[in-house]
Amino acid sequence: MADDYSKVLLDESEMPTQWYNVIPDLPEPPPPPLHPGTHEPIGPDDLAPLFPMALIMQEVSTDSYIDIPGEVLDIYKLWRPTPLLRARRLEKALDTPAKIFLKYEGGSPAGSHKPNTAVPQAFYNAQEGVKRLTTETGAGQWGSALAFATAQYGLDCEVWQVRASYDQKPYRKTMMEIWGANVHPSPSDLTAAGRAVLAADPDSPGSLGIAISEAVEQAGPDPDTRYALGSVLNHVLLHQTIIGEEALLQLAKVEETPDVLVGCTGGGSNFGGLSFPFLREKLAGRMNPTIRCVEPASCPSLTRGEYRYDFGDTGQLTPLVKMHTLGHSFVPDPIHAGGLRYHGMAPLVSHIYELGLVEAESIHQTECFAAAIQFAKSEGIVPAPEPTHAIAAAIREALRCKESGEEKVILTALCGHGHLDLASYEQYLAGQLVDYDYPEEKISAAMAQVPVLG
Amino acid sequence: MADDYSKVLLDESEMPTQWYNVIPDLPEPPPPPLHPGTHEPIGPDDLAPLFPMALIMQEVSTDSYIDIPGEVLDIYKLWRPTPLLRARRLEKALDTPAKIFLKYEGGSPAGSHKPNTAVPQAFYNAQEGVKRLTTETGAGQWGSALAFATAQYGLDCEVWQVRASYDQKPYRKTMMEIWGANVHPSPSDLTAAGRAVLAADPDSPGSLGIAISEAVEQAGPDPDTRYALGSVLNHVLLHQTIIGEEALLQLAKVEETPDVLVGCTGGGSNFGGLSFPFLREKLAGRMNPTIRCVEPASCPSLTRGEYRYDFGDTGQLTPLVKMHTLGHSFVPDPIHAGGLRYHGMAPLVSHIYELGLVEAESIHQTECFAAAIQFAKSEGIVPAPEPTHAIAAAIREALRCKESGEEKVILTALCGHGHLDLASYEQYLAGQLVDYDYPEEKISAAMAQVPVLG
Repeated sequence: MADDYSKVLLDESEMPTQWYNVIPDLPEPPPPPLHPGTHEPIGPDDLAPLFPMALIMQEVSTDSYIDIPGEVLDIYKLWRPTPLLRARRLEKALDTPAKIFLKYEGGSPAGSHKPNTAVPQAFYNAQEGVKRLTTETGAGQWGSALAFATAQYGLDCEVWQVRASYDQKPYRKTMMEIWGANVHPSPSDLTAAGRAVLAADPDSPGSLGIAISEAVEQAGPDPDTRYALGSVLNHVLLHQTIIGEEALLQLAKVEETPDVLVGCTGGGSNFGGLSFPFLREKLAGRMNPTIRCVEPASCPSLTRGEYRYDFGDTGQLTPLVKMHTLGHSFVPDPIHAGGLRYHGMAPLVSHIYELGLVEAESIHQTECFAAAIQFAKSEGIVPAPEPTHAIAAAIREALRCKESGEEKVILTALCGHGHLDLASYEQYLAGQLVDYDYPEEKISAAMAQVPVLG
Repeated sequence: MADDYSKVLLDESEMPTQWYNVIPDLPEPPPPPLHPGTHEPIGPDDLAPLFPMALIMQEVSTDSYIDIPGEVLDIYKLWRPTPLLRARRLEKALDTPAKIFLKYEGGSPAGSHKPNTAVPQAFYNAQEGVKRLTTETGAGQWGSALAFATAQYGLDCEVWQVRASYDQKPYRKTMMEIWGANVHPSPSDLTAAGRAVLAADPDSPGSLGIAISEAVEQAGPDPDTRYALGSVLNHVLLHQTIIGEEALLQLAKVEETPDVLVGCTGGGSNFGGLSFPFLREKLAGRMNPTIRCVEPASCPSLTRGEYRYDFGDTGQLTPLVKMHTLGHSFVPDPIHAGGLRYHGMAPLVSHIYELGLVEAESIHQTECFAAAIQFAKSEGIVPAPEPTHAIAAAIREALRCKESGEEKVILTALCGHGHLDLASYEQYLAGQLVDYDYPEEKISAAMAQVPVLG
């Protein structure tokens, strides 16, 4: 390629045809999920009411690679392979000798990396005869992705959107409806869980925990209906590894290897998707990047949470999983990166962090938005609030290189655009965005509710 | 390439390095613009207070090709070359033997084709020492593009946004501010033109005509300030020809030639950009596509307007240009495709239509939104309201092919995404979108105001 490239593309024929499962390559496997009642490891049958067997088998797979079905590749090709951007204009603005690469996932129909897993989840459900998927959504990214994906395979899609978000961001709802999804504000009177909340508080703004309860409740008893989750679980991170596999091929094309890889972490699927293929290369001794998670200072599950068994949801309906957690009842301050406002962290990312294979840092949101504005002015793209954390971390690293003179290669993922998040930029530009202190008391209170296992 | 490709990409090294000027290839040149006072053809000096000389010389150029400056190519490469999509899933949904190709321009920072001209306009102004650009914007697409472009060359940017749009679509304003533009609602008290309107009606919702007057008034007397226009003029259409030049290369890669080319027309820059390189091929006898404009039924300048000298703006500040017009005082019904709500048509597109080289049809907006929903469900991308017209026209053609059994190759441009236009989809899905009758009386009244030349 020419030396002055701005992005590295792959042809469709070069797109990876397998997802990568990092588990067999780890020095030890992650601890198993436990049944919330018996505290015994759960088996595939325990998950069968919620997920199709193909996804459950991926969740527990010990194979290093899993073939991507042709019917999924066909849909991926609507927007994949995604470009690897070289942020030359940002490098110049920072006056850094570092090279900054960003894997851009915002060109998908839903505008983020989420369709990478929504599409195979919809596919496997359709293949097993499921007619309808239920899910929850906060800011709307995951609901949009699943609405798009279910439309491709003729499935119905029911989304419980957190009431506050449903009222404040009507356009995400509209996007989901364009693809044919049925969107309910949560709490709703369609479920026992929702009705119980409404009975206690008719004006409840809802929460992700309540919305999960409603979606799970609707999926469980109906044999034609299953539930879909957009992050945290092993099979979700597995599907996202196509991000990192593509990035590896793209960096090879320009003969670069990353010295530092940074990714924003909420549930962990964007970070896992980008980093796991590079972790494979690191474990095999073929490269040696520093791999770093970036999380919001107001929801610091890796840097401040404890590594313990906890519930994945506020309503305590899910299995117990060992992860870095702030406590399942922890409610983060209202930062704009809705996708990073999760009390826990993917068990697989938590395990790898515990093994010392990755680092973590936290950043406040005003630094993130300042970084995003600098990025947008240099490179054009307006990032979603979540990847502003990745960009802020990349800029920190690039400025360290400016000090040291090191010509490091920095890789990160720009996992979504911010076209439906412009209200957050409006607040930032008006000087109305605040940073929240470390929520020590809230975390202590929430951690006190985490079950103590025998 | 494999036979089942979903899109055709070009590498940056394959990006065209020249814009194409169709005028020398036409059987006769378009009539010249006239001075509004003398009715004599205007010269470059008449335009010098508004535009830099490089753009004025492009406006009147008789060269067939004009080199794209390296500093512009560098910025183009942030998102160009753009993909050529093959809408296989839509073809299947329509059960048509036709092949449907779409040149997708929504991946630009501003989300449309507009930066293709905003970037060179900002560049040439910066090169001639201009410090500030003024412009108007209706829905906000053009203002966003110019805000992005000026940020690349360190120019200030002042945008007068039609008051009704400023109030109803605050997110376009935020997007412009992210890139550093200063956005004013129009009418404003910053200009004599704005103050006059406000004196008569303090609650004026504004209009594109008023906003143009304000931007032009601010640019004229200040030697450091110039004005920028996002469509209609020859140099704007020239810059957009990179769309068609890329599409030609991409179709050649898959060994296809278009039988039908359709493009939506408002001011004419998207249509001209896509079609002129193909018109060159047609005039040279190398291919023979039917080339068709698609316009909204409520603003039918080509299909119902007269080919006459008229003003480009409501305020009668611009030169007189010969074009298809509904009358400079015509105010279209409030359809959602704001970018197509223009009383006239690019003089160059009008001239080519008059020469019989292109056809035109008009479509109502509810058919367009129905087509857009079908497209989004099949192909993922949610289109802006403007290109829904192009998609509806492509679907009409594909369904005719289904009847006739013809395996036609249909090419159109998907000139922007609809992420900032979801309110229009919300109305459509709620059944609140109406079609407007042909505005015969309004057009008659407006045409009565068009000057009669001696």
